[in-house]
Amino acid sequence: MLKVYKFGGTSVGTVEKIQAIADRILSEPSHQHVVVVSAMGHTTDQLVELSGSISASPDPREYDALISTGENVSAALLSMSIIAKGKSAISLNGSQAGIYTSNGHKRAKIMHVNPSRIQDELNQNKVVVVTGFQGISETNDVTTIGRGGSDTSAVVLAAALGIKECDIYTDVDGVYTTDPRAVSSAKKLTEVSYDEMLELASMGAQVLHPRAVECAKENGIILHVRSSFLPDEGTRIKESSTMELNRSVTGIALKKDESKISLVGIPNSPGIAGQLFSTLGEQGVNIDMIIQSNEQINETNTITFTVSEDDFSSAKTITESVASQFPGATVVGDTDIAKISVVGVGMISKPGVAAKMFQTLGNSNVNIQLITTSEIKISCAIASSDAQHALQALHQAFDLHLA
Amino acid sequence: MLKVYKFGGTSVGTVEKIQAIADRILSEPSHQHVVVVSAMGHTTDQLVELSGSISASPDPREYDALISTGENVSAALLSMSIIAKGKSAISLNGSQAGIYTSNGHKRAKIMHVNPSRIQDELNQNKVVVVTGFQGISETNDVTTIGRGGSDTSAVVLAAALGIKECDIYTDVDGVYTTDPRAVSSAKKLTEVSYDEMLELASMGAQVLHPRAVECAKENGIILHVRSSFLPDEGTRIKESSTMELNRSVTGIALKKDESKISLVGIPNSPGIAGQLFSTLGEQGVNIDMIIQSNEQINETNTITFTVSEDDFSSAKTITESVASQFPGATVVGDTDIAKISVVGVGMISKPGVAAKMFQTLGNSNVNIQLITTSEIKISCAIASSDAQHALQALHQAFDLHLA
Repeated sequence: MLKVYKFGGTSVGTVEKIQAIADRILSEPSHQHVVVVSAMGHTTDQLVELSGSISASPDPREYDALISTGENVSAALLSMSIIAKGKSAISLNGSQAGIYTSNGHKRAKIMHVNPSRIQDELNQNKVVVVTGFQGISETNDVTTIGRGGSDTSAVVLAAALGIKECDIYTDVDGVYTTDPRAVSSAKKLTEVSYDEMLELASMGAQVLHPRAVECAKENGIILHVRSSFLPDEGTRIKESSTMELNRSVTGIALKKDESKISLVGIPNSPGIAGQLFSTLGEQGVNIDMIIQSNEQINETNTITFTVSEDDFSSAKTITESVASQFPGATVVGDTDIAKISVVGVGMISKPGVAAKMFQTLGNSNVNIQLITTSEIKISCAIASSDAQHALQALHQAFDLHLA
Repeated sequence: MLKVYKFGGTSVGTVEKIQAIADRILSEPSHQHVVVVSAMGHTTDQLVELSGSISASPDPREYDALISTGENVSAALLSMSIIAKGKSAISLNGSQAGIYTSNGHKRAKIMHVNPSRIQDELNQNKVVVVTGFQGISETNDVTTIGRGGSDTSAVVLAAALGIKECDIYTDVDGVYTTDPRAVSSAKKLTEVSYDEMLELASMGAQVLHPRAVECAKENGIILHVRSSFLPDEGTRIKESSTMELNRSVTGIALKKDESKISLVGIPNSPGIAGQLFSTLGEQGVNIDMIIQSNEQINETNTITFTVSEDDFSSAKTITESVASQFPGATVVGDTDIAKISVVGVGMISKPGVAAKMFQTLGNSNVNIQLITTSEIKISCAIASSDAQHALQALHQAFDLHLA
């Protein structure tokens, strides 16, 4: 059987860990193996730092040529280890593995995969070790596909090789109902749907890169997130099954580094929100939640939105420049904000999840500042100081400790 | 004017040094630049160590994939620095630079260079930074061309681009009459012939890789060895000129880590030397000097040869196994040996160099143990303890302090 799987940076962080992976591969001699690897430990961060010491905005092509070397090193070392233990193996870089991307750098898009060399090497009974995170452009330049891209590399290779399930070996043993470091009763989930995983991943449960989940969803590939160090089954990310629909909420995500900005006292006239958010967008500020409310008394409007703390000061400056156009308008900012979200495909068919969430927060004396909802997610902005307390209360209320 | 040159590992050892090279390039805006770089400082040694921690004899293909990454890093960083300072640049790896090698690994031979992409990038007014030491094989695998190979990379690129002179920037400012750390009156030479440089380089004056000198000789390219840190002219290595023939001796080389083995008391019959040296060759022992002498009294022969200290114990074991076939034969070893050589194309037309060398050593109470000669070199094996003394005496006797 052909297996396609990926080991992350922590899993290949030392020569000893690389040799442990080689041993694991040798223990399955009846399988064919395509192993995607990230760079060792903090190698990529160190290379990024090196480029940062030359320029705050290094040339993207050279940046890619630089940081892609980390994967070349780990792939060569793993292949070397397998060979030293007596099994044929070969490391292939993005070009050799046939991973063709757009000409863009730092976040190139994978255009197509030509797995002919991989197939050739497999036919020669070799373990194929592929550098994650990198590809080759039409102009024969080395590209990288964005941080966390090794997950995506593994998925596209699985798709190109016609494999239905792709293992993602990482330093956690699966996807939990919430962060087990925050809530000790958090339970490992057996299965999560692609959409739930996307909602969870984009909100801080950084087990899997969202792009890899999207790519797996598009190609119908099951992702199996599991521990590099334990033999146990992990969590499978796949199309939602009937099993999942029995639960209304699958998991709870908490994002702590949020901030809130309110533009208060603006006229109740069209176009102001459009002007504000287009300016923010042009400056690269990603907006998360937005609400607009109307003050009945003096007929003015308030626009409130959240951004990550990193973007807070530039967003506040932009908002203040908009406010300056309107006499009496003011800007209020608050960096003491967290966003808590309950996620579950089951809530589509099970009404009352929102009500239960708000009641639970109310009973816990947590003040809800903003609310947004999607089909499978309800998010509330709350004070950071309430975050841990709210997370535990919701985890209990939705019976996730029994999951 | 198009310039092709190389910076060694010490010259690109830190981000600051890389930026100094970028500044130097920007100070010559009217030239076109093709810059070959080695890996930063001890990067290659660290990668070799990493592979050594996996296997004492790592797979050669994976070894090349691993250690070639050092040059990718330094080339990307230099290109990035040039761009950050406002000039267009691009780094090209061995494949992108069109350096095609044999399929062998670790010591691949450069088969041909296709400089079309380099030419394209130059035509776009870019500084082209090329990774030294690496190429690409027919099978699209990354190869390396042996330690010190970056010098050779620069020479083959100069040849492919039709350039007649190639600068080798390094941490010394030229080729000296002898090692200036050993003899303070050593003088920098303006010119050295290819053949002299080959004799000097292969004997420990490790300024230039012998292969690069051979390659330059074949292609008629002048090598200009000079300091990365000083603006001064260095030493040009080229076909011998009339100027050189005015001096009988160009330089003196000293190799300290020699050892001597004698096979004593073997019958005066044919085939023994052939058997001994073919066995040593099969075991990978490189022999340097050889003499065979005959004891008149008992009609037995003695074969004496020198090897580097690294090979001493395996060479002695092999010699003892040959000795065991002959009753009365014994093996005597001595690791306290140095080889001192006077080198100069001028000695071809100036008799008396050998006599002067032997006299000088005799007057200095240095006992000569073995002698070998070539057209442009005379070498003597002497006791290590005499080496420094002998070097100074010869440097003085041949007026090299006046060079």
